[in-house]
Amino acid sequence: MNFDREIEIRVEEIESVLKSYLPEEEGNPETDWAKTVITAMNYSVNVGGKRLRPLLMAETYRLFGGDGDVIKPFMAAIELIHTYSLVHDDLPAMDNDLYRRGKKTTWAVYGETMAILAGDGLLNYAFETALKVFGMPGNDAAKSAKALSILAKKAGIYGMIGGQTADIEAENLGEDVTLEHLLYIHKHKTAALIQAAMMVGAVLAGADDEQVGLIEQAAYDIGIAFQIQDDILDVTSNLETLGKPVGSDAKNQKTTYVTIKGIEAATQEQRAMSDHAIEQLRSLEKEGFQNEFLTALVRSLITRVR
Amino acid sequence: MNFDREIEIRVEEIESVLKSYLPEEEGNPETDWAKTVITAMNYSVNVGGKRLRPLLMAETYRLFGGDGDVIKPFMAAIELIHTYSLVHDDLPAMDNDLYRRGKKTTWAVYGETMAILAGDGLLNYAFETALKVFGMPGNDAAKSAKALSILAKKAGIYGMIGGQTADIEAENLGEDVTLEHLLYIHKHKTAALIQAAMMVGAVLAGADDEQVGLIEQAAYDIGIAFQIQDDILDVTSNLETLGKPVGSDAKNQKTTYVTIKGIEAATQEQRAMSDHAIEQLRSLEKEGFQNEFLTALVRSLITRVR
Repeated sequence: MNFDREIEIRVEEIESVLKSYLPEEEGNPETDWAKTVITAMNYSVNVGGKRLRPLLMAETYRLFGGDGDVIKPFMAAIELIHTYSLVHDDLPAMDNDLYRRGKKTTWAVYGETMAILAGDGLLNYAFETALKVFGMPGNDAAKSAKALSILAKKAGIYGMIGGQTADIEAENLGEDVTLEHLLYIHKHKTAALIQAAMMVGAVLAGADDEQVGLIEQAAYDIGIAFQIQDDILDVTSNLETLGKPVGSDAKNQKTTYVTIKGIEAATQEQRAMSDHAIEQLRSLEKEGFQNEFLTALVRSLITRVR
Repeated sequence: MNFDREIEIRVEEIESVLKSYLPEEEGNPETDWAKTVITAMNYSVNVGGKRLRPLLMAETYRLFGGDGDVIKPFMAAIELIHTYSLVHDDLPAMDNDLYRRGKKTTWAVYGETMAILAGDGLLNYAFETALKVFGMPGNDAAKSAKALSILAKKAGIYGMIGGQTADIEAENLGEDVTLEHLLYIHKHKTAALIQAAMMVGAVLAGADDEQVGLIEQAAYDIGIAFQIQDDILDVTSNLETLGKPVGSDAKNQKTTYVTIKGIEAATQEQRAMSDHAIEQLRSLEKEGFQNEFLTALVRSLITRVR
């Protein structure tokens, strides 16, 4: 398997799925005076990104034998949720960031007011989009409802928003942040949406509760390992490779996995988590579920350079 | 019928439904470091309000013979959506309001960052809450999915968020705002959520497409008439009665239905819309659907003083 080529093909597919669900900027009288927010929403999505969450979702769906289109609205939805969280995170009242992935942030282009509305618009539109599953051939209402509930819970106060809140609280604590607090942030701010991605894929493909539970565990490890890599790159990378300023954690006196554990121990633990996640995925092989690309993808997340 | 007493009883019921769905502030380890956002969310909901949208939803449900519990998560959800829109509207980057309903706004109490997250949290939690219908006895998956899709669409860029965007654009135009633009704002910013409320009630009670279409029309008239009353009260009321500063439209040189049409014509048109909505509801009587309280409620919306 040529992993780089395989991932390129898959990301292209995701871009085309995403594109097919983005709202039209022109030609709909219902949005005559709402064009600015739609343009800002689409700008935010089209700035790009690794598309990791839809990728993990699609590959977990495939792992459990899924091969229908019902996964597509959910693939778009999770990327819309991830995007809205970045749009709001970048706001002046939050991280006050002007650049992301080497491009201007949404508020830097469209202003603060429109960026707040664009974030709201993206979150709402994520649910509008996922709900389209109910009109699709091959829809199984019980599975779709379960997938929607997982997505909603993991994105909200019991998931991502909980993690964002804990992250804000941590900023006020500076260097007094405990490892327990930090793990809470990573579990919720980062891992929750990765769990949602993989669990939705599993549920829609018909995985049973035990299998979904195993995926939730594996996705936790993947999410934490992924986040530690972010912390590591903030220390070891550069603006050009990373597409955003490095050293920002140190500058902001931010407690990270790396500042607490040191870069060597952090790297080791991250590797152990990644190995553990792969072991868990491999344990499904005896039940006949196997996806080599997914395994390679998980492995690649801790070796990534941006 | 003692309308004032009847509405009091119903609003009490709504408060208890709302309360039953609000997230716990204590005792859940999943939200150990997320308590602030939950407290801010609950504060925003508990500041109060007319609870008009859940009221219209429950009464439309009753109009079409609905008598189950499946309406309850949707009643909570629509009030959560309404509340989030106010929390974000009040932000410094939006209307910069310190008071609402005589109480401090969410950002004035919890700060801007937490108010952004609380708004996001409320919107997300609205969907989490509505999705609970799928686990309830008496759930009809097709109806619930349809109700969810209506709610999501009317709250988003094709509804409320579209209207908010148009409203922001209007602020920049000042007195150059056209009647067409203004009606677009009211239709989307105000009427859309009232349409969602009543349509969800109709759908869950089993109304057919034609009946849901009639309710959508009636709710449009109700929404516009309701909004014009807001514009009228901003001219004719006072701080004590209204619970918020009056004369703000004139101060902000804001174009309203009243500034374009004058207060007499605005009052007349508003009355005509209200009458038309009631006529439409009455037309359902021949099919055996009748709800005197709902009719009285619609009539009361244009005579309200706050």
